[in-house]
Amino acid sequence: MTPIEFKGGEFAFIDWIRRQAAGAAERLLVGPGDDACVIDPGSGGVSVTTDMLLEGTHFDLAKVTPREVGWKAIGVGLSDIAAMGTEPIACVAAVGLPESSDRAFAEALYEGMRDLADRFDVPIAGGDVTSWTAPHVVICVTALGRSTGAEPVLRSGARPGDVIVVTGSLGGSLLGRHVRFIPRVNEALVICREYAPHAMIDLSDGLSSDLAHVAVESKVGALIEEKLVPISPDAEEASGTDGRPSIAHALDDGEDFELLVTLDEADALRLVKDCPFDARLTAIGNVTDTGEIFIRDNDGNVRQLEPGGYEHLRGT
Amino acid sequence: MTPIEFKGGEFAFIDWIRRQAAGAAERLLVGPGDDACVIDPGSGGVSVTTDMLLEGTHFDLAKVTPREVGWKAIGVGLSDIAAMGTEPIACVAAVGLPESSDRAFAEALYEGMRDLADRFDVPIAGGDVTSWTAPHVVICVTALGRSTGAEPVLRSGARPGDVIVVTGSLGGSLLGRHVRFIPRVNEALVICREYAPHAMIDLSDGLSSDLAHVAVESKVGALIEEKLVPISPDAEEASGTDGRPSIAHALDDGEDFELLVTLDEADALRLVKDCPFDARLTAIGNVTDTGEIFIRDNDGNVRQLEPGGYEHLRGT
Repeated sequence: MTPIEFKGGEFAFIDWIRRQAAGAAERLLVGPGDDACVIDPGSGGVSVTTDMLLEGTHFDLAKVTPREVGWKAIGVGLSDIAAMGTEPIACVAAVGLPESSDRAFAEALYEGMRDLADRFDVPIAGGDVTSWTAPHVVICVTALGRSTGAEPVLRSGARPGDVIVVTGSLGGSLLGRHVRFIPRVNEALVICREYAPHAMIDLSDGLSSDLAHVAVESKVGALIEEKLVPISPDAEEASGTDGRPSIAHALDDGEDFELLVTLDEADALRLVKDCPFDARLTAIGNVTDTGEIFIRDNDGNVRQLEPGGYEHLRGT
Repeated sequence: MTPIEFKGGEFAFIDWIRRQAAGAAERLLVGPGDDACVIDPGSGGVSVTTDMLLEGTHFDLAKVTPREVGWKAIGVGLSDIAAMGTEPIACVAAVGLPESSDRAFAEALYEGMRDLADRFDVPIAGGDVTSWTAPHVVICVTALGRSTGAEPVLRSGARPGDVIVVTGSLGGSLLGRHVRFIPRVNEALVICREYAPHAMIDLSDGLSSDLAHVAVESKVGALIEEKLVPISPDAEEASGTDGRPSIAHALDDGEDFELLVTLDEADALRLVKDCPFDARLTAIGNVTDTGEIFIRDNDGNVRQLEPGGYEHLRGT
């Protein structure tokens, strides 16, 4: 194994990271640089999520900067922690770099992580830096959250009659939003504190796939209204380029990192009416007891909605 | 992005994993399959460590089985949790696979993880499976631990006069031990409960490097005795093959995943005399106040011991 040319070496880079982390959150009992970090989660359960971003699958360094890749790596984790109704308290990050990487690249990755983590006062509490002969970059972020009093909000809690509400607008994220999004941490906490959601998920695989996850876990179905699905300007732009309808982008593209929430009708109406934060809120349909997911198009025709989001390792 | 041919697909594989995890530890409040898992750490701090294993750097699939790779991925994490003096309570695992991978490979990786995790009743509480066009395998395991009452044992606690004790024997791990070791979880907990260690680290980078980490963090030095360093049979075998002295293998090879502990003299003598578990225990030298690390060879000559373990991203 030939160590890479990396000014100052791995340990100097770790020292640099430790200096960046100095004075971080009070929940960080032991910071980077020991065998493990130690955090104080307070009382209650600790939510944990891990996501691996692979060059070529989750980001293309010809199109995005290393800083954006770092941002995305943290964003994906915080989005999952938010979707459980939990408050993020720490992240750890492991990075695999080609031997040809330089320190500036590694620092930019880290700075992108910090840019986003700092917005939520989340320390990057520890990590791992390693290298290989392959010419590809890998990042794996594990995010941790704590309960803020309520039970975690699962995918399995949706009930027939619930209204389905989504934040933001959907589709076309690959045009750039997928490396620049703000995870819906604050929005999720407000919804959980004041609107008693039954089920919640973040839209990472695509609305049609993620709604199917909720339906399967909750043993319910759904009917959504095409005319109500909030289509992002990015979806319109992508449609102009590739000719796929913008609604198809909104239903299937994935990586929106918006929230999908189901609530009983009164709470849903109150939530949409209050709109207690800047993010747009849209009721797009209802949970049903059919076990299948349908969409009513703008002509009033109802058809089954197949999961269309990207599935890694798709079956044969 | 072309999804890989993967019988049953990603979600079927995740379902399979969820079935494996059924009935797992009571600390698992929400298991695999939601946006995040939720664990109950009890009271006190939570230790967290993340390690990325890259094909070609940390394992060679021409020499080891996928099951062994999975075992190693968990072992590296549990070893770090142990070295903090904490008890492992959960792991999460992210895996990046070539698109050409088949389900049998993924299952073997997972089974290797479970083989080792089960020995310590540690649930694999969640994870991520993803794929890319690159022909390489990546695994990232994040392990979590909980306090068993005492404060975490850091690298920074060594004091001049301490005796340096290591478990097991060192060197030549790459001959096979690096994918089959049992992390020193139980030994670390016994040492912490009964022998008041001042500093502890697991030997992953190599004795000469890891002792240097302790020295730097603790602002101390060390003098070790060459004749006392426990040389593994693997180091002898490696020496026979490559002609490097077996002591050099024991000092520099890395990936032993043994513990290095510093304790005051009375506790160290008691520990070595009691030898309260099956693992060998050897006092190899003392902590000094010089700020540098020396080794006395078998002729009585003292020389400075340079960190010789492998350093990723070595400096220019």
